[in-house]
Amino acid sequence: MNKQEAMRHTLSHVLAAAVKELYPNVKFGIGPAIDNGFYYDIDFGDAKVSDTDLGKIEKKMRGIIQRKLKMTKREATKSEALDWARDNKQDYKIELIEELPEKETITFYDMGDLFTDLCKGPHVKDLSETGPFKLIRVAGAYWRGDEKRPMLTRIYGVAFETEDELNKYLEQQEEAKKRDHRKLGKELDLFCFSDLVGSGLPLFTPRGTVLRDLINEFTQSYRLKNGYEKVCIPHIANVDLYKASGHYEKFPEMLQFVSQESGDHLAIKPVSCPHHAQIFAGSPRSYKDLPIKYLETTMVYRDERKGELGGLSRVRAITQDDSHVFCTEDQIGDIFGELIESAKDLYKVIDMKLRLRLSFRDDGDGYIGTPEMWKKAESAIKDMAEKYKMDYFIGEGEAAMYGPKMDFMAVDALGREWQLATVQLDYAMPTRFHLEYTDVDGSKKTPVMIHCALLGSIERFLSIYIEHTAGWFPMWCAPENVRILTVNNQVTDYVKRIKDVLDTVVLNEPIKNNKLRVTIDDSADSLGKKIRRATEMKIPCVIIVGPKDAEEEIVSIRLRDKEEKVKLKDLAKFLGKLS
Amino acid sequence: MNKQEAMRHTLSHVLAAAVKELYPNVKFGIGPAIDNGFYYDIDFGDAKVSDTDLGKIEKKMRGIIQRKLKMTKREATKSEALDWARDNKQDYKIELIEELPEKETITFYDMGDLFTDLCKGPHVKDLSETGPFKLIRVAGAYWRGDEKRPMLTRIYGVAFETEDELNKYLEQQEEAKKRDHRKLGKELDLFCFSDLVGSGLPLFTPRGTVLRDLINEFTQSYRLKNGYEKVCIPHIANVDLYKASGHYEKFPEMLQFVSQESGDHLAIKPVSCPHHAQIFAGSPRSYKDLPIKYLETTMVYRDERKGELGGLSRVRAITQDDSHVFCTEDQIGDIFGELIESAKDLYKVIDMKLRLRLSFRDDGDGYIGTPEMWKKAESAIKDMAEKYKMDYFIGEGEAAMYGPKMDFMAVDALGREWQLATVQLDYAMPTRFHLEYTDVDGSKKTPVMIHCALLGSIERFLSIYIEHTAGWFPMWCAPENVRILTVNNQVTDYVKRIKDVLDTVVLNEPIKNNKLRVTIDDSADSLGKKIRRATEMKIPCVIIVGPKDAEEEIVSIRLRDKEEKVKLKDLAKFLGKLS
Repeated sequence: MNKQEAMRHTLSHVLAAAVKELYPNVKFGIGPAIDNGFYYDIDFGDAKVSDTDLGKIEKKMRGIIQRKLKMTKREATKSEALDWARDNKQDYKIELIEELPEKETITFYDMGDLFTDLCKGPHVKDLSETGPFKLIRVAGAYWRGDEKRPMLTRIYGVAFETEDELNKYLEQQEEAKKRDHRKLGKELDLFCFSDLVGSGLPLFTPRGTVLRDLINEFTQSYRLKNGYEKVCIPHIANVDLYKASGHYEKFPEMLQFVSQESGDHLAIKPVSCPHHAQIFAGSPRSYKDLPIKYLETTMVYRDERKGELGGLSRVRAITQDDSHVFCTEDQIGDIFGELIESAKDLYKVIDMKLRLRLSFRDDGDGYIGTPEMWKKAESAIKDMAEKYKMDYFIGEGEAAMYGPKMDFMAVDALGREWQLATVQLDYAMPTRFHLEYTDVDGSKKTPVMIHCALLGSIERFLSIYIEHTAGWFPMWCAPENVRILTVNNQVTDYVKRIKDVLDTVVLNEPIKNNKLRVTIDDSADSLGKKIRRATEMKIPCVIIVGPKDAEEEIVSIRLRDKEEKVKLKDLAKFLGKLS
Repeated sequence: MNKQEAMRHTLSHVLAAAVKELYPNVKFGIGPAIDNGFYYDIDFGDAKVSDTDLGKIEKKMRGIIQRKLKMTKREATKSEALDWARDNKQDYKIELIEELPEKETITFYDMGDLFTDLCKGPHVKDLSETGPFKLIRVAGAYWRGDEKRPMLTRIYGVAFETEDELNKYLEQQEEAKKRDHRKLGKELDLFCFSDLVGSGLPLFTPRGTVLRDLINEFTQSYRLKNGYEKVCIPHIANVDLYKASGHYEKFPEMLQFVSQESGDHLAIKPVSCPHHAQIFAGSPRSYKDLPIKYLETTMVYRDERKGELGGLSRVRAITQDDSHVFCTEDQIGDIFGELIESAKDLYKVIDMKLRLRLSFRDDGDGYIGTPEMWKKAESAIKDMAEKYKMDYFIGEGEAAMYGPKMDFMAVDALGREWQLATVQLDYAMPTRFHLEYTDVDGSKKTPVMIHCALLGSIERFLSIYIEHTAGWFPMWCAPENVRILTVNNQVTDYVKRIKDVLDTVVLNEPIKNNKLRVTIDDSADSLGKKIRRATEMKIPCVIIVGPKDAEEEIVSIRLRDKEEKVKLKDLAKFLGKLS
């Protein structure tokens, strides 16, 4: 554990001590350090605690910290620990202690003589070392994450080693709130939810669908130009398919079963690879046919918990920009090479920096395939990361069921890192499905499978991309990318001439033949109001047409960051260069 | 019942009489007249009867017919009828008679003194009037269609009033067999099935997906140019959605339920309209926004019985080229007008003749909405059929749950009629979903919904279209529409020059910006073999390149119905005109 983690952990104890002074009868759950700070889960009994109480608690915490109390580790037996917990009526701690092995030495931390907590540590030496922090939020959390256990109150704090880091984080949070994709999704009319349809099931409006479709065309274009071919599968399958693939055995919770009168035992697909493997299996294959590259953007369905659903970040209908290659071992390097280059280029267009996580297996049993397959696959992945000079680190236990992955981590405009693109090497599933091709010598061989999604899921990507761009989508994918505003009703003819030019313009970067999506606001409203409306909808290119423009045959263009005047005859060329 | 039906019905009795003579211990099920002839369901006990026995049975039938026996109707009480059935050990007839009301008069038909059957009639006067026929097929059929009852043997015969009609029908059947889309689907590598994935769940290969996508682009193009906008929805929803829509109450068998750990009660969508209604409901709407036109090609799921699945004709994953308009009553005429014109044009391109069925409600209870709504909607539909001078007839009891339909019946190259496009007027569902818009006077009004699919289902349309074209798809939608065959290995440079020209060609009819899909067969095989392969794959345009073509800068083109020689410099223009 590093120093920052110890500081955060100690602050969670300070939080508990402060709460205990203010609300003497509370019972404590757990209080760990987390990514950006700490939290403590607390049962306040009949007392109600909300965000408005955070100031009071924080003040009490700062008072305690000023006393520079020492953090002292102390050992105890299980029975001593239980005595402590019972004396203090700490029911949740009793439960935790009871689950520990009989002979284990249990540790406590004393904060001076003010507060004692069951804790493995480590902590900072004394409270003068805790560093800057801020309480930010109160939330509900089921005890041990179990919906059938009591709901505790979780108090979150953020904490960093320096004031600068804390302030930067808080500003970033403030900015993130402004950019919240759920808020922008509504304001920009991109998607909606319906109670009748259900949680985690977004409905994409016409604007949202234009955006989705263009983003999808973009991610597919990289693979289409490398010879991938589209296929099309249904969203359900007999459960036998997932018994053969291994999902039924290893991840039964991924499967949602469908009841049919006919007695067939079906499931909605949680992944598309088994279906694609069956298309490969649908015809005899020769080494001359390989690599076979299937591409399909299609929805998969997962039973995500309700509490975890929110906006597009986590949904129950997940659109994956999926592809599956069936190839020989010799071809793995080229296929990976194409996909690595594609991911690098794609995220350059998206304007996010990438680094690579090599996701390898751990000692768990959530995997299929032999140790030899894994060894070969992991070593191939590592070689390729080095060949392509990628900045990488290894994530143990992050592999897919069937093989190791190359996961691309992308950093957004707010400095947050997301796992997006993934390329996965799979020796196991082709074997389980008995896939085969006839080799040059007439023998039957098993192909290798390479799974890839460049965006991951369209919904999750959009949740990030909306916040990354703050809703200011670039020309190529903005649902409405040009709006013409009239200054008065004297310019109808000139607007028509401009519109005729716009209808001829296509953008060719980053996707080809991308026509402009133009609207005209010639309402009787004032120009100011029209501009406000266009700005609210974050239209990347606004053309304002007044009588003088018509007279001089010029076009006044407002882009997000600048204004331009262009001659009508140069308009098509000017716009064609935007992207 | 018309004369032809009576002739067919009498032939089913002759069939039974012939079988009885050959297999005295048989028990009879039912033997009705059907569309193209007749059948009889028979329990042969331990005897096995197959297609090879049909000749023998047919000969016996012809022998009986030559005796010109009279068909005589005779009445009986229920108890007399039961006595007859018991004496003759006709268990299935006993079951049928027992279900008749106690006091009903039961009728028998005697065929001379040869054969007696329980039957309502009518029949022809004597066997000299039965007309030409032919036994064609033996199949299995569960007694009363129930999988838990015994499997009987169904013998099918075809019968018409004249030899000409019979021969024409048999030739058409022969042709249909050659064009069977299941056979062509495999030969042309368009789709496949997998036992692991399950019955009725086709997997579309790359070629099949190109065809599907182009056909879809084609059907959507008509609506996009009329201002329809694409939307995107998930394939599952809370059951509450279908409770609100009325499907749960009226058609519970349409719904396939999904089991979720989270306890939500979900179903896979059998239709898309309720989801689209929820997008409309997702924002406040004004009269100025109407009509709002949503377009989406998406899969719906139905629990079709296994016995009814075969190829693409009937599937469990159905891709509908769906659209839903929300409009004012005043706008109904225009919306219908656009869709009628679209359907007329689309089927002209597809080369099928259309007539119209106005599908109205009957006295059943499978409907939602008030009698006034129905009256208004049916009368509006009839007015429009007349306004657009369509050849129409009325189909009572063919309406949708929520309103009357305009169903377009299309006749294929084999003279078969199919219900494909449908436009449906719906006053009921917007009311059930409490959809509303603000009218010009500020009051809240309920919009009208217009449902439309121009192809119906992409799968079913393809099953018909493959047979309609015999797999010879036109240039615009053939998955591979140009193949270059080399005469020898001396023409590499010239092939490259041709390929460069082909890459510049786009077809603009019936869909725009449709690039050529070109392959090159420069294998070492003989030209004859290459031509055979291209013909088997029914490539609409084959270019054969020999040294002499290269020398003279001409291109030798084989279309399906003719051969052409074109100068290289005219090639792009020549191909651009094909469609």
